[in-house]
Amino acid sequence: MGEIIGRVVDNKQIILKGYIDGAPKETDMELKLGKKMKLEAPKGSGAFLVKNLYLSCDPYMRARMRDFHGSYLTPFVPGSVVEGFGVSKVVHSDNPNFKPGDIVSGFTGWEEYSLIYKPEQLRKVQPDTIPLSYYIGLLGMPGFTAYVGFYEICAPKKNDYVFVSAASGAVGQLVGQLAKLHGCYVVGSAGTSQKVDLLKNKLGFDEAFNYKEEPDLDAALKRYFPHGIDIYFENVGGAMLEAVLLNIRVHGRIAVCGMVSQHSMSDPQGIRNLFNIITKRVRMQGFLQSDFLHLYPRFLEDVGSLYKQGKITYLEDISEGLESGPSAFAGLFSGKNIGKQVVCVAHE
Amino acid sequence: MGEIIGRVVDNKQIILKGYIDGAPKETDMELKLGKKMKLEAPKGSGAFLVKNLYLSCDPYMRARMRDFHGSYLTPFVPGSVVEGFGVSKVVHSDNPNFKPGDIVSGFTGWEEYSLIYKPEQLRKVQPDTIPLSYYIGLLGMPGFTAYVGFYEICAPKKNDYVFVSAASGAVGQLVGQLAKLHGCYVVGSAGTSQKVDLLKNKLGFDEAFNYKEEPDLDAALKRYFPHGIDIYFENVGGAMLEAVLLNIRVHGRIAVCGMVSQHSMSDPQGIRNLFNIITKRVRMQGFLQSDFLHLYPRFLEDVGSLYKQGKITYLEDISEGLESGPSAFAGLFSGKNIGKQVVCVAHE
Repeated sequence: MGEIIGRVVDNKQIILKGYIDGAPKETDMELKLGKKMKLEAPKGSGAFLVKNLYLSCDPYMRARMRDFHGSYLTPFVPGSVVEGFGVSKVVHSDNPNFKPGDIVSGFTGWEEYSLIYKPEQLRKVQPDTIPLSYYIGLLGMPGFTAYVGFYEICAPKKNDYVFVSAASGAVGQLVGQLAKLHGCYVVGSAGTSQKVDLLKNKLGFDEAFNYKEEPDLDAALKRYFPHGIDIYFENVGGAMLEAVLLNIRVHGRIAVCGMVSQHSMSDPQGIRNLFNIITKRVRMQGFLQSDFLHLYPRFLEDVGSLYKQGKITYLEDISEGLESGPSAFAGLFSGKNIGKQVVCVAHE
Repeated sequence: MGEIIGRVVDNKQIILKGYIDGAPKETDMELKLGKKMKLEAPKGSGAFLVKNLYLSCDPYMRARMRDFHGSYLTPFVPGSVVEGFGVSKVVHSDNPNFKPGDIVSGFTGWEEYSLIYKPEQLRKVQPDTIPLSYYIGLLGMPGFTAYVGFYEICAPKKNDYVFVSAASGAVGQLVGQLAKLHGCYVVGSAGTSQKVDLLKNKLGFDEAFNYKEEPDLDAALKRYFPHGIDIYFENVGGAMLEAVLLNIRVHGRIAVCGMVSQHSMSDPQGIRNLFNIITKRVRMQGFLQSDFLHLYPRFLEDVGSLYKQGKITYLEDISEGLESGPSAFAGLFSGKNIGKQVVCVAHE
């Protein structure tokens, strides 16, 4: 359905109600009608107007829901629209580099239409056989995070023993597959038997286990890694990190991508066995994909090509309708999603 | 006084009484007369007999006093003589590479005389203007730890803000001086005002503070590092590490050398804010000098030369007599020592 330029529409939006402390809940956000919006980019603004198609639910967004200004992420403003990565279609443009019909991915609002004043925060997508929603998943920030985390931080070698937590998630599932293609032995952890099944039977992990069914994570890791772990791709923090420190090998590497189990900034679980970092000479390194943007073109080429050759699979969990956004986002923190969580606002 | 070859002597020894759990105490060890010892290396053994001159008190030795076999260090045997680094003089030799009168440094026993069956664990020292005891300090394992930790792990750049904990200790005092020579801004922490004074007025640190007088370590670090910390040379662990994680800069490096504050393996303090590793993209890396032995000749040359040029100072705390060993060693864990703790068994 084409948009009629200049028409004034209601613009449904997802609003953050107020700052949060613990894990995000569906009720922390609400659907509202925004101000009436004219489907037009103001003349002379250099802006363009997009219709949002797919919105990305990413754990990092929790950090913007807190009243904490010491991070690289600026907090959302309570009462204002939530922002995040999305795939959108240009409806009207006052910017010569973007024209109506262009598909773009990048930074947008959790709303039906967004007026984009910072075009540098989006890039054009050349539609081909790759599903559009993948540009916020496999070929978007999560996929790129997996790519730079694995190749640039983990220093992988053939035959390394690799452990990935939150392994069926947006990032983890690609890390595991890249590690397999690299010749590593790969085990993933996840929180349901269905996810464990997908890891083993669809994503090609050598082994996988449900951490919720393991009363003793140390024992579980010893079972799956009798020779120890060379590389840990850290997505969860807390007890799993402690168990890994007991099982990491000499000169092991821990790429710290996320710590999704640590919901609260005021009382996170302490890691009590960091001493292993010395005795095993471990390198533990946090990273953000945004430090590696020079590698993005190579990533798109590499991973896009692997996908087209059928060497890589990507699991998505798509919830329908903007109104499903708060529930979909909150679900990330209880592991409700199976694969990359996407909100479909409109199909085209 | 020369030794009479073949004479049978009493050989005083320091014995570990039993395995320990918390911080080592003087009473965990005791002075005993060993078996009578003939001052002779058995014919055909390839061994050599040394008279121990200086013994090194190093925090890592605590790990060998525990009944824990999962480390790179094998536990001592209760009832047997304590081992460690020392500087010794060869008395009699059945090994063609060592002859009486040679000065050696390396692995020996906490006793008056040791029969060395593993000559590869010691190296000959060429006596010159450098004090012999420095071969277990400035030019021994602690100095080499400082050297590889700073240059190989910290990735230092001119003008970096460098923080060193346990800064007047055997390792820390050299890290700070190397960092100053590298053009960094260097602050150290220590546990007495006398040590703080030495750091500022003798070792050339830009600033230093007594952590025991700082009820709020975060506030202290903010005062000394208003722009944040680029490099933290970690010797203590616990609360200081948490405070550093609050003040580390983007792309900061933490070289984890020791965690001397974490006395007990059963209940160490948990680090609750590791999340900063991600947001600030921190590299935290444990290391052991023994992984870098190929750099030892360069280290000897570099640091020996800096010392001879007067560009480096080294503080030692020498306790007299083998019998002072247990007390000197235990003192490491309450910070009693000022500078490198050495036990002088004999002057020549």
